[in-house]
Amino acid sequence: MKRKYSVFIGNVGTCFDRHCPKYSDKEYSYSELFDRVASIDLVTGVDLVTEKDFYDNIDAVRKGLARTKLKVASIVVNLFGQPLYKQGSFSSVDPKARKQALEDTLRTKDIAEEFGCEFITIWPGQDGWDYHFQADYAQERTWFADGVRAACEYKPKIGVALEYKIREPRAHNYINTVGNTILTVKEVNRPNCGIALDIGHSFFSYENSAESVALIHKWGGNLMHMHMNDNYSSSDDDLMVGTVHTIEFLEFIYWIRKTGYNGWFTMDQFPYREDGRDAIDESTRWFDALETVMDNANMDEIADVLKKKDAVLSSKLMRKLLFPAYRK
Amino acid sequence: MKRKYSVFIGNVGTCFDRHCPKYSDKEYSYSELFDRVASIDLVTGVDLVTEKDFYDNIDAVRKGLARTKLKVASIVVNLFGQPLYKQGSFSSVDPKARKQALEDTLRTKDIAEEFGCEFITIWPGQDGWDYHFQADYAQERTWFADGVRAACEYKPKIGVALEYKIREPRAHNYINTVGNTILTVKEVNRPNCGIALDIGHSFFSYENSAESVALIHKWGGNLMHMHMNDNYSSSDDDLMVGTVHTIEFLEFIYWIRKTGYNGWFTMDQFPYREDGRDAIDESTRWFDALETVMDNANMDEIADVLKKKDAVLSSKLMRKLLFPAYRK
Amino acid sequence: MKRKYSVFIGNVGTCFDRHCPKYSDKEYSYSELFDRVASIDLVTGVDLVTEKDFYDNIDAVRKGLARTKLKVASIVVNLFGQPLYKQGSFSSVDPKARKQALEDTLRTKDIAEEFGCEFITIWPGQDGWDYHFQADYAQERTWFADGVRAACEYKPKIGVALEYKIREPRAHNYINTVGNTILTVKEVNRPNCGIALDIGHSFFSYENSAESVALIHKWGGNLMHMHMNDNYSSSDDDLMVGTVHTIEFLEFIYWIRKTGYNGWFTMDQFPYREDGRDAIDESTRWFDALETVMDNANMDEIADVLKKKDAVLSSKLMRKLLFPAYRK
Amino acid sequence: MKRKYSVFIGNVGTCFDRHCPKYSDKEYSYSELFDRVASIDLVTGVDLVTEKDFYDNIDAVRKGLARTKLKVASIVVNLFGQPLYKQGSFSSVDPKARKQALEDTLRTKDIAEEFGCEFITIWPGQDGWDYHFQADYAQERTWFADGVRAACEYKPKIGVALEYKIREPRAHNYINTVGNTILTVKEVNRPNCGIALDIGHSFFSYENSAESVALIHKWGGNLMHMHMNDNYSSSDDDLMVGTVHTIEFLEFIYWIRKTGYNGWFTMDQFPYREDGRDAIDESTRWFDALETVMDNANMDEIADVLKKKDAVLSSKLMRKLLFPAYRK
Repeated sequence: MKRKYSVFIGNVGTCFDRHCPKYSDKEYSYSELFDRVASIDLVTGVDLVTEKDFYDNIDAVRKGLARTKLKVASIVVNLFGQPLYKQGSFSSVDPKARKQALEDTLRTKDIAEEFGCEFITIWPGQDGWDYHFQADYAQERTWFADGVRAACEYKPKIGVALEYKIREPRAHNYINTVGNTILTVKEVNRPNCGIALDIGHSFFSYENSAESVALIHKWGGNLMHMHMNDNYSSSDDDLMVGTVHTIEFLEFIYWIRKTGYNGWFTMDQFPYREDGRDAIDESTRWFDALETVMDNANMDEIADVLKKKDAVLSSKLMRKLLFPAYRK
Repeated sequence: MKRKYSVFIGNVGTCFDRHCPKYSDKEYSYSELFDRVASIDLVTGVDLVTEKDFYDNIDAVRKGLARTKLKVASIVVNLFGQPLYKQGSFSSVDPKARKQALEDTLRTKDIAEEFGCEFITIWPGQDGWDYHFQADYAQERTWFADGVRAACEYKPKIGVALEYKIREPRAHNYINTVGNTILTVKEVNRPNCGIALDIGHSFFSYENSAESVALIHKWGGNLMHMHMNDNYSSSDDDLMVGTVHTIEFLEFIYWIRKTGYNGWFTMDQFPYREDGRDAIDESTRWFDALETVMDNANMDEIADVLKKKDAVLSSKLMRKLLFPAYRK
Repeated sequence: MKRKYSVFIGNVGTCFDRHCPKYSDKEYSYSELFDRVASIDLVTGVDLVTEKDFYDNIDAVRKGLARTKLKVASIVVNLFGQPLYKQGSFSSVDPKARKQALEDTLRTKDIAEEFGCEFITIWPGQDGWDYHFQADYAQERTWFADGVRAACEYKPKIGVALEYKIREPRAHNYINTVGNTILTVKEVNRPNCGIALDIGHSFFSYENSAESVALIHKWGGNLMHMHMNDNYSSSDDDLMVGTVHTIEFLEFIYWIRKTGYNGWFTMDQFPYREDGRDAIDESTRWFDALETVMDNANMDEIADVLKKKDAVLSSKLMRKLLFPAYRK
Repeated sequence: MKRKYSVFIGNVGTCFDRHCPKYSDKEYSYSELFDRVASIDLVTGVDLVTEKDFYDNIDAVRKGLARTKLKVASIVVNLFGQPLYKQGSFSSVDPKARKQALEDTLRTKDIAEEFGCEFITIWPGQDGWDYHFQADYAQERTWFADGVRAACEYKPKIGVALEYKIREPRAHNYINTVGNTILTVKEVNRPNCGIALDIGHSFFSYENSAESVALIHKWGGNLMHMHMNDNYSSSDDDLMVGTVHTIEFLEFIYWIRKTGYNGWFTMDQFPYREDGRDAIDESTRWFDALETVMDNANMDEIADVLKKKDAVLSSKLMRKLLFPAYRK
């Protein structure tokens, strides 16, 4: 099945982490980053982040988009990468931070409107806590929902997708698991509020991403966006797609077909030690290969297996999906 | 603070697990079990489970309760310990299993009424899945909520508390984390449906039990019951209370005080290699000692620290709570 | 590649765990169990455990072996399933338990000799600890190594394979990870002492099973035996082979080829909710299908990729292995 | 007990991580950093890292040491924070990287000699792998041991301490767990090679730090150095000491007393959102408070409890240690 693939523009650049301030001496201009994204066969979109240099280079962004014809899948408002938000954005105990979070979010909606994208993304990476006896978990979450609601009410045609993650950079994040995120969407209580599912975040919270899709659908969480990567179920390794959880990706694809998600699949990785462009190229090919497996599958047969709740049948089905040529 | 402590009656007996069919050659009659529970200083209640031998010994149970004056905190309906439920109870794809689950639950409510307890407990240990492509996560959860709703509607003065656990015995359970459980309570949509929080289950899902209490309170999950034990954050070890997560227990106690939970604290352990009576005695003394720490704390000072969101203040507070005599 | 597949005889019977005393009402005699094992196409061996009923049925075992022509891959001495060993076997603080552990082990070697198997297996499931301040980690491990050494010295043609597991049933086991197990083999210091690698145990200790094979080979741990199953990296779920860690199994097979292991692959599962015979049949077919993938691979090409340390090449290789028909 | 406390000099500065390039607008000169360290009551030493700006500011370092009289506990050679080492240092497949790693290490030994410290520290953060089929686990580890051996042989009076960590920044590190690290020390086979134990690294590999100390002692791993912090057992959160694993710290202190470690305790944290000086001050006070608890304990009584292997006695002991005033 043909999918709309996007990539975080920074993924084709260079990376750093807390132990290594740069993994490569190369630096890419926005113009080069756009060209690198555009060079990936299966990618037609780009996700942006309002980091400091984004606004400084807004014209280069505009030109890059115009030149490459890439669509903007979504824009992440940067509520995590500056000292003001170190103790949270919309959930901060500091009213100045909450106010600034709203302003930054509204400004992001303006840009989103200009770039024709349907929703912005909020990843509240600093909204959480590190120590016992450090936070009022109820009050801070109420502030968070209030802030998101205000953001939803501005230019309501543009959606607001909340991305959950159980931890990192905080030891414990507020928007952490699928259930708590659905509950937050309900607390926000605006039709343009929804969820951005990062598949790696579901892996490392002991969720099954297929089941998370089913739950968002069942309980009205409003699935808006998808981030794609892989990991070893213990950390947010942000590896190339499918290189670890191969079978789980197949089941995930079954459930996105079953529940009718037709939006973007944005590659969201940290290719510290690889060429980012090539790593993203790999990820889209993995995803495409997995889609091809499902194209060749019989959806009714799968639905029938699910109704039987018999693991031996599930096993036979998975073997058939993965090893179609193997006949034993 | 004086608390109402209960214990699962089987905890003072003997244990087995999948690797060892018995950890002790001793066997205790129901009569002896009641005497053992009654001999624990701080315990005034007992939790029962409708295991096969429960109904066979119902008169011994009645006599034990009458003789010891122990209250029945709650009764767990056994929806997990027999072949019929191996693929789930209320969520089973087998209508016979769903029907039997309801019958077993209603019968448990009858006993609960007779024994004067305010709610029964449902721990749906077999409701879940083990393999990818084994289950329809949405449909089976709908059946689950439907069944619990029917159970709620019978003798509605008696509550139905859902106990969540992320895994074991299934590789993945449906009633798994605090958020998904609150959402299930909302799907059930009956005022006598609520939650039984097992503190160890919150530990090993990377929840903070204090935060789970706050969330159930904030989002209307209706906290009905508490199970107490400890573990190393990776499995449901069911160890003695406070022996691992000492500080987290203190924060948990702060939040149950703040949110006003006044119900039972039921010791729920598997003292495989200890004398169960002595292990439960230890657990209640740990909990009582931790309550004493909080009795000596200044609740306003703690509330003030939480408002500051400054971890150095949190650290100083925790040191003061734990080492009141240390002056540096 | 044709492999020698075995199965734990109990795997084709029925299961129980600490929450459910039986998952099926069926009971199988030893005679039936042997027939069920023999009915699995790819299986030619069986692993036995000296559980209580093993010696009671030793003649039925002899007859079953004679009738089915199944080989005995190994025998596990039951040092975990009885009250005497609840605090450990060879590492117990109780000299009586240590003495009995040796006697039970020597008796197992006698049977192993009779059945023509090359080594016995020791899985010291109760040798470990549950609580802080409960154990002298150094002294108890010394006793353990002393006991295993004595067992090695009896009938030294028969090997003694130590199976490691990080936890369960103890909260913390002594023979827990690949490194500590190699160090124990060195402490035992007898040529017939080696390691039984349970692939699921490596998964849920955040080991890569391929790397564990490499380390045992590099550091002289003497790999004697293999147990096969799968899990979700957090518990010892004992699922069907390959249904979760598909790619990791491929890399594992590469490394067992590279390091020259030619022994048994014993299916070691807990098919609680499946027909055990069918679940084992599935597992052997999965493993055989994965072997077929590697039969079709170019070993030199893989060796070359490993030398490059370039993840994009690794990704391309894995895609080619898994999706040979996909051409993008 | 009075201990020698040190701190990584950068800990009292400002932090960044992969999501936030700076958590504070403040910047500190080396001179200020030394003053901040010197202002912490219980700290008498400092640990240095040969980051790029270290050599650029070597005179400021010299002056800071002279002015504050702080001792240098150890120096970490920076084998992880530059592009050359992105695929490993001593284990790299690139001979140039291996050669440079040795040169950088020898230069660090020169500085260590000048500053009078007894050993340098190697934390091989980039020596590992991220993807299946990416690495030759045996060959790369052999290169690693060869490189460390060469480093040991230069100025052999200065030790080389290997710091293990299970993952991060790599998805899988080579020097990962206590057992594999002891085996590496044995492979290096030089008397001045030893281990730096980071207590948080033991927590998040499901080790018990007390047991790790016991194993290093038992199997001759040569414990040279200690890094102190805390976390929630799932990531390397680098929090203030004792705020999570309070009781485990007590058992750890018991075992360092029992095995006679008398070296430095270096605070190694990432106080992203706190004032680093104050966070370190807290950590040393926690550790000192925990030492005071053990000063008041009866070592013989503890040794006696360990010999009994009875968890109820362990529980009573722990309650007495933590709540000396509680009498029930």
